[in-house]
Amino acid sequence: MLILTNRIGPTRLASRQAFLMTTLSWVALPAFSALPLHFADLNLSYTDAFFEAMSGITTTGSTVIIGLDLAPPGILLWRSLLQWLGGIGIIVMAVSVLPMLQVGGMQLFRMEFAERVEKALPRAAQIGGWISAIYLVLTAICTAAYWAAGMSGFDAVNHAMTTVSTGGFSTHDQSIKVFGSVWIEGISTVFMVLGSLPFLLYLQAVRGAPLALWEDSQVRWFFGFLLTACVLMAFYLVNARDWTTADAIRFTSFNVTSTMTGTGFASDDYSAWGPFAPPLFFLLMFIGGCAGSTTCGIKVFRFQILHAIARVQIRRLLQPNGVFLAYYNKRRVTEQVESSVLSFFFLFIMIFALLSIALGMYGLDFVTATSAAATAIANVGPGLGEIVGPSGNFSSLPDGAKWLLSIGMLLGRLEIFTVLVLLAPSFWRD
Amino acid sequence: MLILTNRIGPTRLASRQAFLMTTLSWVALPAFSALPLHFADLNLSYTDAFFEAMSGITTTGSTVIIGLDLAPPGILLWRSLLQWLGGIGIIVMAVSVLPMLQVGGMQLFRMEFAERVEKALPRAAQIGGWISAIYLVLTAICTAAYWAAGMSGFDAVNHAMTTVSTGGFSTHDQSIKVFGSVWIEGISTVFMVLGSLPFLLYLQAVRGAPLALWEDSQVRWFFGFLLTACVLMAFYLVNARDWTTADAIRFTSFNVTSTMTGTGFASDDYSAWGPFAPPLFFLLMFIGGCAGSTTCGIKVFRFQILHAIARVQIRRLLQPNGVFLAYYNKRRVTEQVESSVLSFFFLFIMIFALLSIALGMYGLDFVTATSAAATAIANVGPGLGEIVGPSGNFSSLPDGAKWLLSIGMLLGRLEIFTVLVLLAPSFWRD
Repeated sequence: MLILTNRIGPTRLASRQAFLMTTLSWVALPAFSALPLHFADLNLSYTDAFFEAMSGITTTGSTVIIGLDLAPPGILLWRSLLQWLGGIGIIVMAVSVLPMLQVGGMQLFRMEFAERVEKALPRAAQIGGWISAIYLVLTAICTAAYWAAGMSGFDAVNHAMTTVSTGGFSTHDQSIKVFGSVWIEGISTVFMVLGSLPFLLYLQAVRGAPLALWEDSQVRWFFGFLLTACVLMAFYLVNARDWTTADAIRFTSFNVTSTMTGTGFASDDYSAWGPFAPPLFFLLMFIGGCAGSTTCGIKVFRFQILHAIARVQIRRLLQPNGVFLAYYNKRRVTEQVESSVLSFFFLFIMIFALLSIALGMYGLDFVTATSAAATAIANVGPGLGEIVGPSGNFSSLPDGAKWLLSIGMLLGRLEIFTVLVLLAPSFWRD
Repeated sequence: MLILTNRIGPTRLASRQAFLMTTLSWVALPAFSALPLHFADLNLSYTDAFFEAMSGITTTGSTVIIGLDLAPPGILLWRSLLQWLGGIGIIVMAVSVLPMLQVGGMQLFRMEFAERVEKALPRAAQIGGWISAIYLVLTAICTAAYWAAGMSGFDAVNHAMTTVSTGGFSTHDQSIKVFGSVWIEGISTVFMVLGSLPFLLYLQAVRGAPLALWEDSQVRWFFGFLLTACVLMAFYLVNARDWTTADAIRFTSFNVTSTMTGTGFASDDYSAWGPFAPPLFFLLMFIGGCAGSTTCGIKVFRFQILHAIARVQIRRLLQPNGVFLAYYNKRRVTEQVESSVLSFFFLFIMIFALLSIALGMYGLDFVTATSAAATAIANVGPGLGEIVGPSGNFSSLPDGAKWLLSIGMLLGRLEIFTVLVLLAPSFWRD
């Protein structure tokens, strides 16, 4: 509703208003959408309900509800809807608001948008409409596929909404594992990947440039990360843990995709996959998907830029007076973008570290504290260890920890700067 | 010897030769200084001996030797000497070689050096000599203080060498804890701090500018980090763990200083200080001391620059067309320094993550793998958990893990870029 209200007419927002509105929307939405969860027959305190709603709207997918299988269908649908709306909300924001605000290197996508698409589609509202239509179609196809693979209609609708939005809420405590179906896992993997690609490229594909997806270096890097992690993990499981190749491929591809895209479905508890899995999955949490998708985390394009800058640095060390430029997608990375992206990375890591320490103060053990902090700020869902891992549940955490994690989810979802800027004294002057 | 050989005469090194020489020296030194450890009656394989020597020369302080109390005195002295020489080696490198090579923002200190000191002290060799003299004097005072506080002469010499170099090797398995003396811990804390401050400032102090130390923002930030961590930790121990205030101050100040400066002495196993301690100590490992000291890690000046850049970013978001500049020690941070420091931070974190994953592949559990990776790359010494924690020992790790950790120590000690540059294909062209 807030998004729609603010889209009517040619009103121009000053950038301060845009920052304030964005952050307030993402606080007000969970504050109110928590009410049905709080009033439902689930014994959720308001803290729990707020955590669940924030986890939904930010497409994180961490849950405090035990006994999802017996929960009222209305509540389950409400949770899935929150993620679905959160997913489309973030795409529209990433396409229209964040590039305008120049948050964490997102200005890169303003330029691209203005030069390549604007001629064909002059107005942002129109683009928003098209993207929403694509989102709806993807969800419908996913629902049909799930249903065809054996899910009940209700499960199919709910899971489709939380798959395409890379959210990760399920209607079962055991998540996707409960179906034990390789078809369902495969469909889920495909749609998690589709939800992680830049939606603007789908739009270009639909409007006559079907190769746009393959020409985008971000998409190629995304698949590069995904395949590398899958191959390494599967290789380890086959060789060091004596899994069959078929099992290794099946469980690896699903769980790696689910973690890297920040969805958070689990078809198996990877904590039990031997000592190689936890650090690998921990790193995957931070990566995320592409800019302009439903995913979170540091995002692939930032790793590309960081890599390009580090390469330039090394060449400059060898020839201190040479002029070397960093490129992203065949375009020069300006100094503005460079420091945006690098500061984003620094703040992301520091907030993760400080959040871990604060959670330690609430009594969480090292693995729980660090992985809960990572999973919140990267909007993944499950962390590592028995408490917050894929087989665990966030309900046993102290209330203070839940509020801290909610703040972490908000910071991660709004790309950190959008929220931090409100804390600057100069924001409130005049 | 290598340092001295290369300092004779006015030979100028091209920057490629300097990179190659620096890295090769820090590989050749441990390779040869490992031999006495390997031949001694300690049952150390060459892998173990190399790990121990690398840990010594990089002033890390991780050990694979069990039964230090019964080890031959010659070997104990050899280990301490390695750290002592490693400590002075790194100061001289940080003052003369790294700023010239423009590694990770160290060019900042070239400018300072050239403008402020060069007039009085025209040659780098002379500065090296002065710094060595100061280092020697500090070590002598530390020895005397330890001896006065009750250490045997042998223990006093050894510990003084490993304290001033922020190395952390001890002549006892139980490290400083074995003395159970608040005086020894206090002396150790003071000299660890002295070893973490910029030695160039001592030189300025000795040569007539005694206030230089207090005017340097890096020194103020260093104490700021240290005090904040001590106060938080002590506050937690008193309130949540019912420690007496005296005990909390005693154990906190020593162990926080030891971890943050990368020394790695332990007077107590902080793994047992409740869930708040591990994430806090983990973060402290990364911080390190000041540039131009014996310490390692990311270093305080880089956090200052990262903080300044992030502030500028936030102000730029509010006024996209405003011109905001980042400052360090009242000087503008140039774009070159900015991207050097930010790339350094990115590479530091990525190498830490990849090293953790690789250690996981060797079967180390999550806490051991991540903290061993951090402690190696930040050259601290002990990690977290039972195996590599303050009460543990690195000897039980697989050989492959020891080699990986040795590489991590080398990368961390040589500020990453100095080694990575050798991997660039363009380094070897022509």
